[in-house]
Formats: sequence, structure tokens, C-alpha cells
Amino acid sequence: MKLYDGGRAPNPRRVKVFLAEKGITVPVEPVDLGKLAHKSPAYTAINPLQRVPALQLDDGTIITESIAICRYFERLHPEPPLFGTDAKDMALVEMWERRLEFHLLGPVSHIFRNSHPAMKDMEVPQVPAWAAANRPRVMDFLALLDGELKDRRYIAGDRYTVADITGMIAVDFMKPAKLAVPETLGNLKRWHAEVSSRPSAQA
Amino acid sequence: MKLYDGGRAPNPRRVKVFLAEKGITVPVEPVDLGKLAHKSPAYTAINPLQRVPALQLDDGTIITESIAICRYFERLHPEPPLFGTDAKDMALVEMWERRLEFHLLGPVSHIFRNSHPAMKDMEVPQVPAWAAANRPRVMDFLALLDGELKDRRYIAGDRYTVADITGMIAVDFMKPAKLAVPETLGNLKRWHAEVSSRPSAQA
Repeated sequence: MKLYDGGRAPNPRRVKVFLAEKGITVPVEPVDLGKLAHKSPAYTAINPLQRVPALQLDDGTIITESIAICRYFERLHPEPPLFGTDAKDMALVEMWERRLEFHLLGPVSHIFRNSHPAMKDMEVPQVPAWAAANRPRVMDFLALLDGELKDRRYIAGDRYTVADITGMIAVDFMKPAKLAVPETLGNLKRWHAEVSSRPSAQA
Repeated sequence: MKLYDGGRAPNPRRVKVFLAEKGITVPVEPVDLGKLAHKSPAYTAINPLQRVPALQLDDGTIITESIAICRYFERLHPEPPLFGTDAKDMALVEMWERRLEFHLLGPVSHIFRNSHPAMKDMEVPQVPAWAAANRPRVMDFLALLDGELKDRRYIAGDRYTVADITGMIAVDFMKPAKLAVPETLGNLKRWHAEVSSRPSAQA
């Protein structure tokens, strides 16, 4: 088994934080995004969509998409459960994980890719108006999330889950996207400080 | 239990096709998107993100996000399996489901929302340049998918899965987004005709 990794980029980091929470070690093959190694013919043969991470199983099967990779490990190593426990809890974890993807990590990524000078050759064409349209949406969602975290320790309930991993990494990704969590969102800041203090956050 | 539905809109339809494949009947509460009922205070209390569908359980719990709702039903009614069978198969189904969301349904939705006159009051501001940037990405992904379907009956293997539901609905959503599958993509057309001929496609 081998994990094709992209360093500190948000999606590979989601898988590495997840593995750290599970206490699983997987051999890693670095893919140098700065040198566009993910667009090389060799890596394109692994993932035609030219994205990291990708997990290669011992039988050669390639699994891409961070959450698909995480759920694969959840099945092999169920403890601690990071995707929920029973049907309802699992649905709520997935609901929050997806809300964070579609309303935070996704929009922050769109802002970064469509406004950061370093992405000029990666996101063609950059559409600055799309970055601008997403900034207020991110702020609206952060305010909603702050309200949710008023009465809950973690995003999907009393237990740390994969939704917290996506959330932490989305908030961290705001920095290169030149966005900041407003100081008034105290619940969100408390939650982010707590999840960031876990050893897994160093992954 | 009650499903808040949005008629033929892509996301509610994903859940209804899934339920039809499972042979499950759930009471439906229509939400009239044309009259912006999803933005009403009553519906905002159900889903603060103002999106359909939403599933209300008998204990009052609200589950949103189409795939979270589908997976909830998969746990309660495992047959026929639509999210895969073992760890590897489940990972491949989720990988393809997500590839179709992020590289087809999502971009088609962005094109529709940012270019269709009917969305002018829903997507504010519309960014036509973002719609234009996504058109070639959709075409590139369709070509990739056509190649994948050369040797496979369904998107994630020999069995119909939730990835086929997302794929069928994404292709159907191309029409209002004023996009068409190129005639040259014969494998994709064969697959779309087959999944569209299933009784569930009428949902």
C-alpha cells in the first residue's frame, strides 16, 4: 500500500490527519505540486484527474478522493470511529462533512485558485469575480457554524469526527486565500483552537 | 419520517431515484423552489442553508445533503447495495460518486446557476466568466468518463450504484445548462440510455 501525497495541500492533509487519529502508518510517496509533478505523465497514469492524494493498494487498485480513502481506512480500522456509530449518527457526520466541503472548503479553494498569483498557471483562466462572489458566502457560513458550535464541542456532536478534520483544514486554508475568521466568532475560534491542539493536526 | 422535496431539481431527484431503486416509500412534503419556498422562514428553520432535500426523522432530527440521506437509507435497507459491498468496492463507489460530483454535477450546476436567466435572482451575482471557464472542464471530464465506460457496464463496475444515479442526473442537468454530450462519446451515450431506461429514472 502506498499513499501519493502532496505535502501541506488541503486534501492530502485531510487523509494524513485522519491516519494520525487512527494511529495508522502508510508508506508515502511525495508528489511535488510546486513542480507540477501531479500533471506529469507518470502521475496522470495513476490519477487521470491529476489530483492528490491517491492510495495505491497492494493489488494495484487506485483509490482517489480524500474521503473515499478515509472511509476505506475506517472499514479496515473501525476504532476510533470517525464517520459516526449508528445510522443516524453516521448520517449527521456525513451531513456536516459535506456541508463543510460545499460551503467552506470548496468556496475557500475557489477563492484561492481564482485570486492567488501563485495559481495563475494552475487555474486557467482565473476568474477574480468568482473569488469575489464567494467571499461573502464563506463569511455567512462561518457565522452559521459559529452558532452551531455554541452548544456543541465538535462539529457533528460530542465526538471528534472526520467533519472536524475537513473543518480545521478549511479554516487553515483561509490564510493562503487571504481570509480571516472574524474575532466575533468566539465559538468557532474555541473549536478551531481545540482541534488544532490535537497531535494529529501536525500532519 | 418526511422528505422535503424539490421536484425535478437535481439533488432531490438523486434521493428519489435512490429510494425507487431500494423500493422504499417515504412521505414527501413538496417545497416549491419556483416560489422560493426554500428561502422561507419555515424552511430555513429546517435547513438554515436553504437547500433541498432534507429528511426529517420521527424524533425530529433533520438530515440534509443528498448522499448523507441516501447512505442513511442504505444502512436501514442494505439490499440492493448501492454504495458497494466490501471495503475496496465501497471505496471505488465513493471515489466515482465524488468524481462525478466534483467534475460533472458541480461544474454543470455552476454553469447553470451563473448563466441561466432564470437563476438571476437566485445566484447573486451571476458570474458568466465562471460559467465559461467550466464548460471545457465538463467536456474534458465527459471524454474521460467515456473512456472509462468502454470496458465497464456501470460507472463503478459491473453493478449499478449511487455513482450511476449522480452521473445520470448530472448528464440530465446538462440540458437546462445548455450543454450537450458530444455524439462521438458512444460509451457514455450507451451507459446513459441504459440507466435512463430503469424505472427509477422516472423519479
